[in-house]
Amino acid sequence: MPETNRRIVLASRPEGEPRPENFRAETAPVDAPGPGQVLVRVQWLSLDPYMRGRMSAARSYVKPVGIGEVMAGGGVGEVLASNAPGLAPGDIVMGYFGWQTHAMADAAGLRKLDPAEAPVQTALGILGMPGMTAWTGLHNIGQPKPGETVVVAAAAGPVGSLVGQIARLRGCRAVGIAGGAEKGRYLVDELGFDAAVDHRDPDMAGKLAAACPKGIDVYFENVGGTVWDAVLPLLNDFARVPVCGLVAAYNMTELPPGPDRTPALMRAILVRRLTLRGFIVWDFNAQEEAFRQEVGAWLREGRVKHREDVTEGLENAPEALIGLLKGRNFGKALVRVAR
Amino acid sequence: MPETNRRIVLASRPEGEPRPENFRAETAPVDAPGPGQVLVRVQWLSLDPYMRGRMSAARSYVKPVGIGEVMAGGGVGEVLASNAPGLAPGDIVMGYFGWQTHAMADAAGLRKLDPAEAPVQTALGILGMPGMTAWTGLHNIGQPKPGETVVVAAAAGPVGSLVGQIARLRGCRAVGIAGGAEKGRYLVDELGFDAAVDHRDPDMAGKLAAACPKGIDVYFENVGGTVWDAVLPLLNDFARVPVCGLVAAYNMTELPPGPDRTPALMRAILVRRLTLRGFIVWDFNAQEEAFRQEVGAWLREGRVKHREDVTEGLENAPEALIGLLKGRNFGKALVRVAR
Repeated sequence: MPETNRRIVLASRPEGEPRPENFRAETAPVDAPGPGQVLVRVQWLSLDPYMRGRMSAARSYVKPVGIGEVMAGGGVGEVLASNAPGLAPGDIVMGYFGWQTHAMADAAGLRKLDPAEAPVQTALGILGMPGMTAWTGLHNIGQPKPGETVVVAAAAGPVGSLVGQIARLRGCRAVGIAGGAEKGRYLVDELGFDAAVDHRDPDMAGKLAAACPKGIDVYFENVGGTVWDAVLPLLNDFARVPVCGLVAAYNMTELPPGPDRTPALMRAILVRRLTLRGFIVWDFNAQEEAFRQEVGAWLREGRVKHREDVTEGLENAPEALIGLLKGRNFGKALVRVAR
Repeated sequence: MPETNRRIVLASRPEGEPRPENFRAETAPVDAPGPGQVLVRVQWLSLDPYMRGRMSAARSYVKPVGIGEVMAGGGVGEVLASNAPGLAPGDIVMGYFGWQTHAMADAAGLRKLDPAEAPVQTALGILGMPGMTAWTGLHNIGQPKPGETVVVAAAAGPVGSLVGQIARLRGCRAVGIAGGAEKGRYLVDELGFDAAVDHRDPDMAGKLAAACPKGIDVYFENVGGTVWDAVLPLLNDFARVPVCGLVAAYNMTELPPGPDRTPALMRAILVRRLTLRGFIVWDFNAQEEAFRQEVGAWLREGRVKHREDVTEGLENAPEALIGLLKGRNFGKALVRVAR
């Protein structure tokens, strides 16, 4: 087998924002699959905000990527060789292949995709982890009721855009926060959000208040920082806040200056009977089939839309992740590793 | 009717801790009840931490007590005269009579008590608002499962002591935080808590960690401040925090100095999938009968205990409330207004 694996490993842990030198490209030989394994040629690599967490040594959901280890990540690829029943060369599979062109994977951890059902890379976006994050967080924690106001930040991204579209389908007012006028137009004109707010606007808090005349009942939290500061005063009694991510804090190296506003947050939780609840998509793994059926049907019927932001070539993945953490992507961030 | 009403009104709003001059004693004539009303001679006045909130003009659940208005509060008393069907002189009723010796009350807002069932003042404590706060917050939000660890502060008070006792009845490890060795002994020796921690101990955080070897699954929050700081690092994945009160912050006039730890709290919520949810007892009014039946049975069977801290005389209520906010009470704080 004359194939060579190109891969990107974690060279060093970032202080604050990741930089190109935190990554290193390598090559490695490609072996034949052992029992129960398949060799996959990766076609698509998914880039997601959680990857910043894996680059740090700090306590988080799962163990960090080690120095010198292949960067973690989900992908879609083609089976080149199989030593596992049920998978054959040519099959398209989704799995956690990491940042590399070739991956040896246990068949048990893979999901076989049907290219006739939807473009295979949607398994990394609207029909995959980001889509399920939006759907499970909104239903289990946000619990939006018709007529309520649902706000989501990073609204042009794969999670936020589906949160807003589900809110609309559930009869809610959907308000999206995103960076720049182009994303705002996309949210309103193409996705059907009721309003969009530019987080770069110096009067972002005032614009958000104007966009939410009846306050906020559900805030799907995936950024933190100044957006959260603008949201908190607008939360209605009994508002629900699924806490899904805090991109604004991922590159933070120290806490911001005082005063310590923790008591004010706790008081708001108490007096307005807020619910803040953190979650990770796999907390709701039992709902995966229900998610895929409902959102898959919406997608086929054209009731939800999605958008991809494709970077060509594995070697450009580090810059693309750095940009993602700055909000530079417009749609689901993907790297096309091979055609 | 030769009776004179003595009452205590809010003379001025406190800055920080309430002081005696924020209160003023007055007398007023007593009228005959109008249609649907009864005249009540108050026997017991309940003192509760929420009263500090009513003294401030800040946004809270309900409108503040106005300057010159009678201080708000629940009480138990005897009907002196009735102009309402179903209530007769001599009946014992519970209602929100305020800080006064005589109250004119709409019969619709009163609950008639049966002195044969339990001492009437328990309607202000373990069988009343504090007891129901403990029971509803723990069941609806805390949702303790057998084998889990439940921590509660102000544990010798009427809410905390019932939280811990319910936790034990549900098969949990109950850890109480209270001020001083005497309260600690009471929690362990009389109420059956598994451990007690003195919040005045310079190593309170270390003692709490030692008392919770498997971490904390439910923290019933009613104090905030340094106790919360000690609890947060010990919360397990999926821990639940019913936020019921923040006594440590009630007298706070400004936010504490920095850094701003809000991002650290949000990150803990995210990574450990915590649930923080504020509540007020009346959010669960529909469960009042279920609460009273279960806790009433436990009380009659001796499976839960309670303790009263009685101040004699309405004129001493201001000092008693000031002491309550400093944790000086030991048990349910009551004022005996008349025998």
